[in-house]
Amino acid sequence: MPSDTDEAAKLETGGPIDLSALVALIGYQLRRAQLAVFDDFIRSFADHNIRPSQYGVLTAIDRNPGSSQAAIAQSLAIKRSNFVKLIDEFERRKLVVRRQVAADRRANALYLTKAGQSVIEQFHAIRAAHEARISALIGSPKEQKLFLEQLSRLSALRETLED
Amino acid sequence: MPSDTDEAAKLETGGPIDLSALVALIGYQLRRAQLAVFDDFIRSFADHNIRPSQYGVLTAIDRNPGSSQAAIAQSLAIKRSNFVKLIDEFERRKLVVRRQVAADRRANALYLTKAGQSVIEQFHAIRAAHEARISALIGSPKEQKLFLEQLSRLSALRETLED
Repeated sequence: MPSDTDEAAKLETGGPIDLSALVALIGYQLRRAQLAVFDDFIRSFADHNIRPSQYGVLTAIDRNPGSSQAAIAQSLAIKRSNFVKLIDEFERRKLVVRRQVAADRRANALYLTKAGQSVIEQFHAIRAAHEARISALIGSPKEQKLFLEQLSRLSALRETLED
Repeated sequence: MPSDTDEAAKLETGGPIDLSALVALIGYQLRRAQLAVFDDFIRSFADHNIRPSQYGVLTAIDRNPGSSQAAIAQSLAIKRSNFVKLIDEFERRKLVVRRQVAADRRANALYLTKAGQSVIEQFHAIRAAHEARISALIGSPKEQKLFLEQLSRLSALRETLED
């Protein structure tokens, strides 16, 4: 073990940390890229206070009006308890409404409100500008397509939702 | 708004949720792929109870013995408070030791213990088998290289650590 003097020298120089053993790893780079893309998304939506998961939920409800909470949550691989909190917040913000289904009192059908339908078009436009920025970093349309295919192949490793 | 009968029909059919508006988005696919790869990593390390972030920290300490907590945490973009908890757990597990530096009583230098040095070689072998599985899904070595470069370009969007 090095002496205290060596340690002090190392700490004082504050030289760069060698992460070469990690930067070649796909999982490490995937996580860093995902965090960077989500940061860019969140900055893009700063005026609207919408996170990527929230955008995904609103879009899924918009495209599948009347679907159950359980079905939407599962399709997006969001834990049920977290999903309920997301919908609670959307109800407070008057963007989503739950309607109890007569045929099954335990099931809640989800709809965008009029206000929700009106803001989601604006959200799609903001998302499109963000996506264009990200896509340009990936490369040509052909390279973008391959990149998405590669990500899909990785996603297929995880077939079932874990709670 | 549809009638209750329509809703019941939709809920009962339980048809697949249409996510076509999301699956073409890079951020959405990145997140799903990252979760799948991390799941595979965690399953690979089930006998050792090591998560990807923990593997990254142990590897960084092994390659940069005597570096400060602050330097390692920052290089890995881990929040200081989370990093302290990680190191606390490694100390309990006798894998890492903090040594106070005489020249600066506020700074802690990090080292792997003998036990830590011994298990990390085993961890590298497990990680290599996981990485081989993931890499094969990406494609040829040339395609793997491009894929990592594309991820690096995305990561560069986020230059500063946010707390």
